[in-house]
Order: sequence, then structure tokens, then C-alpha cells
Amino acid sequence: MDYLGVAVVGFGTVGGGVVKVLLDRRRELQREIGVDIELRHVCDLDITTDRGVAVPKELLTTDFQKVLNDDKVGCVVHLVGGIELERKMMLESIGRRKHVVTANKALLATKGAEIFKAAAEAGVSVSFEASCAGGIPIIAALRDSFIANRIQSVIGIVNGTCNYILTSMSKKGASYHAALGEAQKKGYAEADPTLDVNGTDSAHKLVILSEIAFGKSFDYSAVYRQGIDTVEARDVQYAHELGYVIKLLAIGKARADGYELRVHPTLLSADHPLASVDGVFNGVCVRGDVVGDTAFYGRGAGRMPTASAVVSDVVDVALGRAAIAFGRVRKLPHVSEPGRIVPMGELVGRYYLRVNVVDKPGVLGKTSSVLGEHHISIFSVLQKELRPAGTVPVVMTTHEAKEADLTAAIDELERLDVVKAKTVWMRIEGNDSE
Amino acid sequence: MDYLGVAVVGFGTVGGGVVKVLLDRRRELQREIGVDIELRHVCDLDITTDRGVAVPKELLTTDFQKVLNDDKVGCVVHLVGGIELERKMMLESIGRRKHVVTANKALLATKGAEIFKAAAEAGVSVSFEASCAGGIPIIAALRDSFIANRIQSVIGIVNGTCNYILTSMSKKGASYHAALGEAQKKGYAEADPTLDVNGTDSAHKLVILSEIAFGKSFDYSAVYRQGIDTVEARDVQYAHELGYVIKLLAIGKARADGYELRVHPTLLSADHPLASVDGVFNGVCVRGDVVGDTAFYGRGAGRMPTASAVVSDVVDVALGRAAIAFGRVRKLPHVSEPGRIVPMGELVGRYYLRVNVVDKPGVLGKTSSVLGEHHISIFSVLQKELRPAGTVPVVMTTHEAKEADLTAAIDELERLDVVKAKTVWMRIEGNDSE
Repeated sequence: MDYLGVAVVGFGTVGGGVVKVLLDRRRELQREIGVDIELRHVCDLDITTDRGVAVPKELLTTDFQKVLNDDKVGCVVHLVGGIELERKMMLESIGRRKHVVTANKALLATKGAEIFKAAAEAGVSVSFEASCAGGIPIIAALRDSFIANRIQSVIGIVNGTCNYILTSMSKKGASYHAALGEAQKKGYAEADPTLDVNGTDSAHKLVILSEIAFGKSFDYSAVYRQGIDTVEARDVQYAHELGYVIKLLAIGKARADGYELRVHPTLLSADHPLASVDGVFNGVCVRGDVVGDTAFYGRGAGRMPTASAVVSDVVDVALGRAAIAFGRVRKLPHVSEPGRIVPMGELVGRYYLRVNVVDKPGVLGKTSSVLGEHHISIFSVLQKELRPAGTVPVVMTTHEAKEADLTAAIDELERLDVVKAKTVWMRIEGNDSE
Repeated sequence: MDYLGVAVVGFGTVGGGVVKVLLDRRRELQREIGVDIELRHVCDLDITTDRGVAVPKELLTTDFQKVLNDDKVGCVVHLVGGIELERKMMLESIGRRKHVVTANKALLATKGAEIFKAAAEAGVSVSFEASCAGGIPIIAALRDSFIANRIQSVIGIVNGTCNYILTSMSKKGASYHAALGEAQKKGYAEADPTLDVNGTDSAHKLVILSEIAFGKSFDYSAVYRQGIDTVEARDVQYAHELGYVIKLLAIGKARADGYELRVHPTLLSADHPLASVDGVFNGVCVRGDVVGDTAFYGRGAGRMPTASAVVSDVVDVALGRAAIAFGRVRKLPHVSEPGRIVPMGELVGRYYLRVNVVDKPGVLGKTSSVLGEHHISIFSVLQKELRPAGTVPVVMTTHEAKEADLTAAIDELERLDVVKAKTVWMRIEGNDSE
């Protein structure tokens, strides 16, 4: 191939970046790869808003049929977002035998198998490096570079909005709401931040990363998902005193009996490679049985970093590599066996607890004996100052315990008359020895 | 292709790992990529030493001609090391139209253009992901994933031996010789560690990384190279007091007037992503104009991490991706223009200095006025305790300065009668504002 016609569908933030790179770098890319990648259409319902990119007028269209009917378009970049409309349009592109490049994690996490199956039948490829962790080439790493490995875990900070908020809470002692407000002011959080802060976006990315890492298909709805919207400033502070930072992690782990897939605020030891991933940056740790521990770091969102990933996918289409990766590497959910997601009760790990008790002699003993009865052994305790209401928070970390035991212990704790408020608890990533 | 015959030439540490993975994972890889990758020969002069891998006897051979004459071998993995013998054997493999996979950075950094040219003429590929930073997929990232970018810098800790030694010096206060001895005892340093500790190995890797990052060819002999063998424990300590760690960095930077390619001990601010890369781990930071700042982290050497990279290259050969990357992406030195390496005197950066002066009033003033005359402005000073000999070390960091000015200032300083010993100075990575 020495020519590839491209259409960009969805002229928003990322679309604008992709258009800019494809226009600015056309000759340079042609010199480097010997293929002329021509941007032929930029399609959006709104083609009048200024996107900060100079686009020749004749490229702009509101008519998706024009894209589909152009036989010179060999690759459609789908950047509309959302699920239903994007699904419909993507299937139409595939039906017209056009290769697809997309950053749409919500669609791929929930309808990936359907999209991939249609593409396989049509003989075209679907590429999605930009769907996870922006400019970090994590899909290529998991799919290609680590192919000699059985991947044991993939653990990431994959949502820049949440990481920005948690970093503010940690570095400035801000409350969740203050930090969210600041993120919105700076453009790092949407007006309606729900899908970011409740963990949905991270869970979408986790499904995609896990499907490639483990070569299994996963049911998105079975992924445990807890957001950062209930994280309190004081727990961030207590965690800090204990040598931890709180991060929203997307965790995928292979076990003998299945796979853990879970998104939740997590305490990370301050020397963990992900602990220093701050602000809007993303980071992903991958452990393979051959390569050992690796980590990747970069901007996880935003116009240009995501455009960098999208354009690398377009180049892969131009060079025929996308067809190889899509058609020959059997790691996508339309050809994989379903993977069993281990129920959360079966987790074994360490935990952070804040129990709010009446400040009376013997209370700590009572608390720890309830924990002991449920096989929860305490690793460290931080007894905090008296609160106005006459209760004190007792902050603890545990040794490794089964999560079902922990939740049973907490249920029983909360029935004690000395325990006055809801117990706050979070998972710690890493075992006793780490 | 649904079959690829492979020979491994060089049955040492890495060779043993590659053989193990190819034997253990043959069926699994076949399921994943649809190609049966068969290990047909393991060739070494020594085939009797136990390598800790069970190899069917009939695969072992001391006769390289047997490899060349086997028409079913489509890919030869060259892991002999060194330059002349490897060059000769690799050119023979290429001459017999066998794809080559190698981890040999010394050969590629010094004779890359010759090897690549021969391969291009023979219509075969040369893959070398394992040549730099072991299991970290940095070649693929620079060549493929960041193709939309103009790479602005690639800065890495790419030698695990040096990093282990510097980490010991930093964390335990060990002397260079004590740390080297410990590294040798643990198998992290060779009996003759010269090529690691004097920066040669890092410079080889820097040339390869820079050629791909910047799409230029570079003359290895023009790369500035300073090792860690002269780093003193007290400078590690002073750097620490000033908020820095000392790392051996391989630095490639694009400038308007050429490229900086240099390997030297460097002061890194403690919050730099590479500052926390400790022990035998490697880390590489890449800055692209589209993607922004990224970083990669993993084991940079050792049997299995390097095998992970070698096998991913073999899979690329099996899938036809190696031919695309090698033949179509024009970023290798046999097709690139030469890049100008900027002389060190033209560097602009910040510096660390330890000037050893007589403890007399006015000495600091004299020192700083010499610096001032050469346009060197002091950023911070740490005046240390009196030494037995009656001299005190004055430790300083500078604002940004031209390196030619700095070396001229140091020359003049050393002519002062109050300056008693050789001035120690090192470069700081990062500018005033970072």
C-alpha cells in the first residue's frame, strides 16, 4: 500500500488533535513509512465550532454517508464517544470494509466481541491503542512486546481526572469536593464527572487491558467498581501518616481459579512505582512471568497524547500491521474463552480500616477481639485524637486476610454499641513482605 | 506463514532463556499467533556446560554451517556478543536469507549501517528489541508507537550494573569499590566490568535509541562517554543533601543545531521519574512533541527479561511484522542522514561543583568571582566541615551555564593558590525551572 485515505468521525478534543497531526505531518510520515496518508473527511454534526485547527473547508462534512461512500477511504477513525451511536456507525464502516481506529473504551469494553467479530468477518481490522492510557503504548506492549509472557497482573492508574483529584487531596489536603471543583476549573474534569469519578471509565479500560493481557473475554458488568467520590480527606491524611498514598487503581490479576478485575481507591506504599504518578498522568504496571515487573508512564488523556496513539494506529493500518495484529494475534474477546471473575469475597489482601469508636477504656481491645475472631490480624494502629462528638477514629492496617472475613468482621463491629459511625475501609495493594 | 524454524546461536545466559521460552511456550504461542515456531538448532562452541535448560541433544551443535545449511531455518537469533565474530556470522545468516534477531548492541552501535544494508539487499529483517533496556519495549515504542511524534529527547538508565552500584553508594553510603565488589558477588557485574562501568555499554545503547528516535545515523566514536568509576561516595552524599541522586544517564536530545548524545554520571532531582529507578532496573524517559513526557521501566538485563524481548522479535518475524518494521519504517542508519553531534562545550545546563579550597577568609568570594567572570552564576552553596588537611570542600550548584564557560572557569579556579585539589564537577539534568 502506498496510499491510505482516512476519515475522522467526531471532531471533538481528540479528533481535533488527530486532524492536526494528520495534516501537519503528512509529508513527514510519507517519508518515514512510504505511505501517503491523506485525510479526506472530517465528519461531525457540528462543523462550525472553532476547534483550534485549520481544516480545509472541503474536508468538513456532517454527512457520514459521504465517508462511507468514498471508496478511497480505507480507514475510519471513530471518535464520537458514547455507545449506541458509535456502535452503529462503526458497524457501518466495517460493513463497507473500512479499517477502524477508535479510542472508545466504553464501546469496546461492553460490545467489543460484537465489533471485533463483524470486523473479522469483513476482513478489516479494529485498532484501539488510544482507548487505554492515552499516549502510553500499553496495548502494543501487552499484545505484542510481552507475547512470550503469561501476564500475571496489570495494575494501572488509568483515569487522569481521578488521579488529579486524589493528588490534590494528598498534596494540598483538599476535600474531595474542593479538588473536584479545581479539576473542573482547569478542564481536567467534565461538568458531569460521574463516569470518571465513579470508576466506570477505569473499569472500561480494565476490561480491555485484561482481555489482551490474559487472552480471555470478560463480562464488564461483573467487574467490581468503586469510585473516588466517597474518599475523605482525613483518610488520605491517615494513609499518608502510615506511609501510603491513595490512588484509584484498575487491577487485573491472574489467579489459579480465575481473574480478579476490580477498580477501587487503594492504598499504595509510598515506594510503589505507581505511588508517584501524580496529577493527570497515568501509569500502568505489568508483571509477566518472563519479563518480570515493568511500568509505563505518560499522559493518559488530552488532545495530543491521545492523538499520538490514534495516529500510530492509523500508521499500523497503512503498513498492514493492524491487519496482522487484529487478524492473527488471538487475544481479543470474539475469539477468546470467557474468563471467570473471582468474587470480591475471595480476595486475599491487606486492608486499611477506620473504625469510629467511643473513647472509653477497653474499646480497642473489644475491636481487635472482634477482628481476631474473624481471623483478621492487625498490622499497625494509629489511634487519633478525640473528636468533638466524643468519638475517636481508630485507624488500622491488617495483615493479609480474606475479604469475606473482613466484611463479616466489619458487620459485627458495627453492631457493637461502642462503634458510632460507619467503618471506612480500603484495600492495600501489596502483601506483607512488600 | 504458519511455520518458522529458528536457530539460537550463542548458548549463554540470554541464549539459555530464549531456548527455554521457545521450548516451553511452543504450543501456547502457536495457539496465540497461528504460527508454529520450532527451535531447530542451538549453536555454541561450548555445548557441554549445563545452562539450566533441558535441551534435546539433537538440537545442540557446535557447527554454525549446519544452521546456515538448514533451509527450514528462517530466523537466526544471534547472541554471541562481541563485535567481529558476531558481525561475520550475522552477515553469513543474512547472506543465506535468514531473518536475524539480536541483542548485540556493541555490534549494532558500531556496524549497524553495514548489517542493515546487507539485510535490506538480501530482503531479510534485523530485529533488536533486546539490544536496549532488556525487557522494556523501548525500540517498538520509539519506532512504532510514537511515530506521530518528533522525539525531543530520550534519556535513560540503560545499564543495570552501574545502576546497582550507584544505588548501593546512595542507599548504603558504600564506596565505589565496595559497591562494585558487592555487585560482582551477586552476579550483577562481570569479573571484568570495564565496558559497563566506563559507560561504553550505555553509549552503545544510546546510539541505537537515538538513531531510531531521531531518524539519523550517528558516529559512535563521537559520543561523549564518562563512566561511574570515578564517582566518589562523598559526592553522592553531597548530592543527596542538595536533593539530588546521581545516576549514569544516557542522554539523547534533539536541538535546532544538532543532537546531544552523551553518557555520564548526572545529578537528577529526587522527584525526577528516573531518580527512583533503583538497583538493576532500567528506566527510559521519552519526550515527544505530540505525546509529551513518557517513561518506561523494567529489568534491563538478565536471562529472562532479555529473552522476553528476543522472543517478541522472533514472533514479529513469524508474523511478518519484522519485515514491515525493518523494510518500510525508514528510521535505521543505513537509510538515514548523518546527525550532527553537538560538541560538549556547546551544552547549556546546570552543574554541580565541588571545589577544594584552603579554609581562609575570602576564599568563597574569590571562587565565586572567578565563576562570575565566566558567566557562571551560583544557585546554591553547601560549605562543608574542615578536612584534616586544612582544606574544605565547597559544594555548589549553578544556574544554567554554557559548558565551555564552566570548564574555562574550572581551569582558572585550579590555578588559584587557595584551590588545593582537583575540582569535581557533574552535570545536572533539568533546568532552573524544573
